[in-house]
Amino acid sequence: MVTPIDPTATAFLLAENRSMPMHVGGLQLFEKPEGAGRNYVREMYEQMRDVEEIAPLFLKHPHRSARTAGQLVWKEDEQFDIEHHVRHSALPKPGRIRELLELCGRLHSTRLAWERPLWEAHVIEGLRDGRVAMYTKTHHALVDGVSAMRLLQSVLTTDPDKRGMGAPWAARSPRRRKPAPEISLSDVSATALRAALGITAEAAGLPGALVKTLTKGLRNETSAVSLYAPRTMFNQRITGSRRFAAQDWPIERLRAIGKATDTTLNDVVLAMCSGAVRRYLEELDALPDAPLVAMVPVGLNAKKSGLASAEGGNAVGAVMCQLATDRSDPASRLTAIHHSMKDGKEALSSMTPVQIVAMSAIGQTPAILGPLLRMQGIVRPPYNLIISNVPGPRTTHYWNGARLVGTYPLSIPINGMGLNITCTSYDGRLAFGLTGCRRTVPRLQRFIAHLDGEIDALEKAAGVA
Amino acid sequence: MVTPIDPTATAFLLAENRSMPMHVGGLQLFEKPEGAGRNYVREMYEQMRDVEEIAPLFLKHPHRSARTAGQLVWKEDEQFDIEHHVRHSALPKPGRIRELLELCGRLHSTRLAWERPLWEAHVIEGLRDGRVAMYTKTHHALVDGVSAMRLLQSVLTTDPDKRGMGAPWAARSPRRRKPAPEISLSDVSATALRAALGITAEAAGLPGALVKTLTKGLRNETSAVSLYAPRTMFNQRITGSRRFAAQDWPIERLRAIGKATDTTLNDVVLAMCSGAVRRYLEELDALPDAPLVAMVPVGLNAKKSGLASAEGGNAVGAVMCQLATDRSDPASRLTAIHHSMKDGKEALSSMTPVQIVAMSAIGQTPAILGPLLRMQGIVRPPYNLIISNVPGPRTTHYWNGARLVGTYPLSIPINGMGLNITCTSYDGRLAFGLTGCRRTVPRLQRFIAHLDGEIDALEKAAGVA
Repeated sequence: MVTPIDPTATAFLLAENRSMPMHVGGLQLFEKPEGAGRNYVREMYEQMRDVEEIAPLFLKHPHRSARTAGQLVWKEDEQFDIEHHVRHSALPKPGRIRELLELCGRLHSTRLAWERPLWEAHVIEGLRDGRVAMYTKTHHALVDGVSAMRLLQSVLTTDPDKRGMGAPWAARSPRRRKPAPEISLSDVSATALRAALGITAEAAGLPGALVKTLTKGLRNETSAVSLYAPRTMFNQRITGSRRFAAQDWPIERLRAIGKATDTTLNDVVLAMCSGAVRRYLEELDALPDAPLVAMVPVGLNAKKSGLASAEGGNAVGAVMCQLATDRSDPASRLTAIHHSMKDGKEALSSMTPVQIVAMSAIGQTPAILGPLLRMQGIVRPPYNLIISNVPGPRTTHYWNGARLVGTYPLSIPINGMGLNITCTSYDGRLAFGLTGCRRTVPRLQRFIAHLDGEIDALEKAAGVA
Repeated sequence: MVTPIDPTATAFLLAENRSMPMHVGGLQLFEKPEGAGRNYVREMYEQMRDVEEIAPLFLKHPHRSARTAGQLVWKEDEQFDIEHHVRHSALPKPGRIRELLELCGRLHSTRLAWERPLWEAHVIEGLRDGRVAMYTKTHHALVDGVSAMRLLQSVLTTDPDKRGMGAPWAARSPRRRKPAPEISLSDVSATALRAALGITAEAAGLPGALVKTLTKGLRNETSAVSLYAPRTMFNQRITGSRRFAAQDWPIERLRAIGKATDTTLNDVVLAMCSGAVRRYLEELDALPDAPLVAMVPVGLNAKKSGLASAEGGNAVGAVMCQLATDRSDPASRLTAIHHSMKDGKEALSSMTPVQIVAMSAIGQTPAILGPLLRMQGIVRPPYNLIISNVPGPRTTHYWNGARLVGTYPLSIPINGMGLNITCTSYDGRLAFGLTGCRRTVPRLQRFIAHLDGEIDALEKAAGVA
């Protein structure tokens, strides 16, 4: 079965190269249920592996041949090999979080092969506290970070006693699969083709609108869509190897800061990141005088943009947030960030759907934005790093009795943007996942200490400590 | 410091692609010394990691820029990051050899990044019998399989009480490293350049000589350089993912068979492989009527060929061996293989140095041979698989008191040649390492049982059981 690939997914596939794999990841920590046997992790792995039928999303891989007229299409993997995708791994002693993050960094550094469906999952044993970890890796052409998290959550339950739950890649209603012969593009359903071509036509109009939006930003430096960002060590050519750091904090601490300062939870997240970035760059004697700019993806109403995929996947816009890293006072930074985000969201809501889509293209395809900007004579980086915040479930979830105690996102550093910070909330905690180029962003673990110092400083400044 | 890359190494670098990584590997098993503490493996890893100075071979990476006039050169990695190269890994429970082979297959499936020196080493814990494993991976542009094994052995000793031994990648006489500024190709020592260009000139003459040799083989079907090989399942397009199977047998058993039948040890190795291939293909209902042909690299005198590198690296010729897989009788297969190898080696010794080098080009660059043969209208595969036998040390060796109990080679499947068998001897045992494309060579572990059945059958046939 051959189906067309939409232009956004195609862009992610084509932007990929050896030093810039385009997959998102997730690290989940589970507590074994009471009475778990000695072989619990192996059994969990086997349950994940031995699924009756794989969902179509996890069976398709990119394919290009003379029969598809040279176009990239999705094709079902007829020799699907579950053991290639679902793997059992272990940590060396002493089995601390440090060893887990090191393994996740390594696993996140290797590319997914186009010759197979674009995902991997590792059930990981060997944590000294007895918890079980799962690292999953999915190509951005299949899902974005938000959809990937929703997919993982979709097989969880709030009921600790429920059993018989499947793997995220299992088809929900098992049925016998039909043989899937290769067909040429001319056999593809006309509707599917029209839909794909319709999107292509609209996408073709993007660059002009995008440049218009960007130029507007350039003309008004004080606007939240300003593209004046200083050069920093994050904005260099990257290598293919990754480091990963992660930690979570009680969401109540962040909320209390927001309440006391009349700012949003997201403002506080950005202020923590801003302070940590400032401390990190100061330590390396690399803090620029001008404040750093973060690209902050914000959710868009899919119907409003008139373009988002039916899966609700890639419908995001972006606000450029001045991080006020030139200010030493945490309270003053938080205020500045609050105003920058407010302006940015107002600017976004006054845009036409096409302009929103143009902005959203920044978020979707930063990798292909560079050449476009250079063509327009814009040579300075439009922003220094990407900070996103993806809300997750608020209550405790379980998988076959195993309690999910933490979930941490891994994202995509790109050339010129060596650090990505993605946050997610779950069960009363806010988790920060930092994915960086191993070479250009050294000592990434220091960020965790800096984030911790920053939440303390913000509490003190807000008078809630 | 920039140095030229010789043409063979360049060919290996350029032939590489995502489904055909060009690195060789080695798996070594160690027994911990008596009195080894609880943290023995971590300490072993730290000893491997914390070397004072890295040898130049392990510091250089391929580099190409305007300053090198677009040529690939070796360049020292000025941001060398030992923790990227030396890694600590673990096996999930139950920690059998099966889990170890699975991990080695995975590690062997990922490409080495050109932006860093082309090697990796993993110290692996978690074997249930308490042994420690080490998997190493080195690009074929740096060393061939033989040199890689010698390098690993060079840090071992026959003295179980000796301590203070370094890692294979440590420089032997620590000295302060000089700063290494990037230089343009014009700064490269004229002698080094002439040497490289001299080799290039000679190499440029290869295709003609090679084709002449091949054509000669085609004209004489019964010759040992015959290129009539049937199509088999091994001779398809491969994927980038690998399977690895390995086992060793007492070398005395193989010698006894050879002695009783007046054949060589290598003949017996080939007969075991031949019988196992026959059983494997029969089980899959894929045994062709015509006998399979194996390419068997043989050592050449470096001076005779007048071309081999000073390191003694890539000086090999190749004999095409008819494996007699059409015969069901093990004794008759062994006899046929013996004659085929004898004819082949005689043909090789009567060749001119240029012809030998042309033959050796088959062994060195099978990946680039395909297009060349097609250009000459030769469309059938010249051979079905590669079987090499690399002699290793005969006595027990130790690394800081840890006894080396087994060493198994991992090699390079290529497009059209999905299975590679490499054998090596050590301390009275002959080890077989089978590296196959995960997709096109399924059930690779079955081969081990078949090899075991075959040695039994050969003993029975030779009357030495």
